[in-house]
Amino acid sequence: MYQKLGLIGCGLMGGSFALAMRRAGLVRQITGYSPSQSTLDKALNLGVIDEQATQAADAARDADLILVAVPVAATESVLAAIAPALSPKVLVMDVGSTKCDVVAAARAALKDRISCFVPAHPIAGKERAGIEQADAGLYQDRLLILTPSGDTALAKSREATKLWEALGSQVTSLTPEQHDTIFAAVSHLPHLLAFAFMRSVVQQPMGQRFLELAGPGFRDFTRIAASDPKVWRDILLANREEVLRQCLMFQDELRGLSTLMASGDAQAIEQAIATASAARADWQMNQN
Amino acid sequence: MYQKLGLIGCGLMGGSFALAMRRAGLVRQITGYSPSQSTLDKALNLGVIDEQATQAADAARDADLILVAVPVAATESVLAAIAPALSPKVLVMDVGSTKCDVVAAARAALKDRISCFVPAHPIAGKERAGIEQADAGLYQDRLLILTPSGDTALAKSREATKLWEALGSQVTSLTPEQHDTIFAAVSHLPHLLAFAFMRSVVQQPMGQRFLELAGPGFRDFTRIAASDPKVWRDILLANREEVLRQCLMFQDELRGLSTLMASGDAQAIEQAIATASAARADWQMNQN
Repeated sequence: MYQKLGLIGCGLMGGSFALAMRRAGLVRQITGYSPSQSTLDKALNLGVIDEQATQAADAARDADLILVAVPVAATESVLAAIAPALSPKVLVMDVGSTKCDVVAAARAALKDRISCFVPAHPIAGKERAGIEQADAGLYQDRLLILTPSGDTALAKSREATKLWEALGSQVTSLTPEQHDTIFAAVSHLPHLLAFAFMRSVVQQPMGQRFLELAGPGFRDFTRIAASDPKVWRDILLANREEVLRQCLMFQDELRGLSTLMASGDAQAIEQAIATASAARADWQMNQN
Repeated sequence: MYQKLGLIGCGLMGGSFALAMRRAGLVRQITGYSPSQSTLDKALNLGVIDEQATQAADAARDADLILVAVPVAATESVLAAIAPALSPKVLVMDVGSTKCDVVAAARAALKDRISCFVPAHPIAGKERAGIEQADAGLYQDRLLILTPSGDTALAKSREATKLWEALGSQVTSLTPEQHDTIFAAVSHLPHLLAFAFMRSVVQQPMGQRFLELAGPGFRDFTRIAASDPKVWRDILLANREEVLRQCLMFQDELRGLSTLMASGDAQAIEQAIATASAARADWQMNQN
């Protein structure tokens, strides 16, 4: 049982963590901080937090658990702000979708307190962002990736593992570099493609009419295009080398398929689709 | 109440239509035909059809309703095969995802019987293909597009509208050309992108490891990549001009976003994502 959770950032991810901790009976008191007063008011009214802090350091002070759930580019300034207020026994985690930049930010900001920081990335999300979407079950049965660096205390990694497992997550560990390579391929690039696709549709003169007739395939393919612009701005920039590398491979593949279509090579097209179709039909989430 | 439904093609779409007709109490007898005997056996065993036909024309003979649910490139040969067996009062429909080619095929194959043919496209699908996936509720609350040509009898279009409405679909009409332009943008291109994306992931040396860690965003984005290879081979070829035109616009957009990422222009990236995010957040299915 944690005595005080300091929640820095009260959006979908942070809010869902707070609700999950509460539901699991793992926390006595939750103090939240957000730079937006209206978000903070919503968090209090929705029962996500018990108390509002006017500064990040106030949310962190005396906390034995701190979750930093902000767009990744804000990680360094948040950690720097709370560093002087950290209690000796605290566990600090983030939920960022990129990890090399977060580890570098933590080193720069936390300095000799770096050992209490365990970088975390829950593989979970929702169609829409915001504290109103917070959900105690968001992390249940979902993968949770920890990317401890050489600076992370082993005891803190173990504590983080236990904690997320208690919330129903399946915990696995990667290096920050492995993490960023993998998620460039299976998460960041798909987001980029979904953003580009939505833009290419709505910018057409008949785009609105097109959207009126779109069906369930479109619905699922574009779900991630509704993601939070600030969060994804930061992810795409923080991991841009890997994402652009994946994007080039995708563009090559798309050009190849376009060439087959233009040439009318039915057999080659069928074979190409069959590879994709079989791979996707065989895939199941969380079978690691 | 129809006396006999001739079902040509016993896959997800055709099977679901048969089950929906049965559930609605709108048909007395369903005779199915498939070039695959094992599919036909499954259809009988699953209770989708009452009787097997050994030729398409036998399924069509004496039927007052015929549904052709085959990959679109097979439409012309199927219609030519059943043309001599059509009863005077029959309504013939297809469920193909492209319509200009289907209308041309129907003209060539049905000749002076063309007036009984109403081209139809249900905006519905599932993660996996095949008769085992057939579902009486597949068309419920889904859009159903009719694309009657000048050759289609008005009474047949009305009959088709009534029929699909009785199955719970929301019926709307477009010209075949409008249909193919719109669905190139909101359905065919997303499929092409999903196929290309899956291929670009699985062809990487670490592709399988990547897939093990993919989460719900990947799941939804790639759902349509599991679609049937023969069905989508035909769609991508039949509508290739429009699909390739949409693909070029998408590629321009993707290059633009890549350039912003490479230049590190955070504000422009956020703005670009915000356009996509707002458009997707505002979108709701079937609000036409």
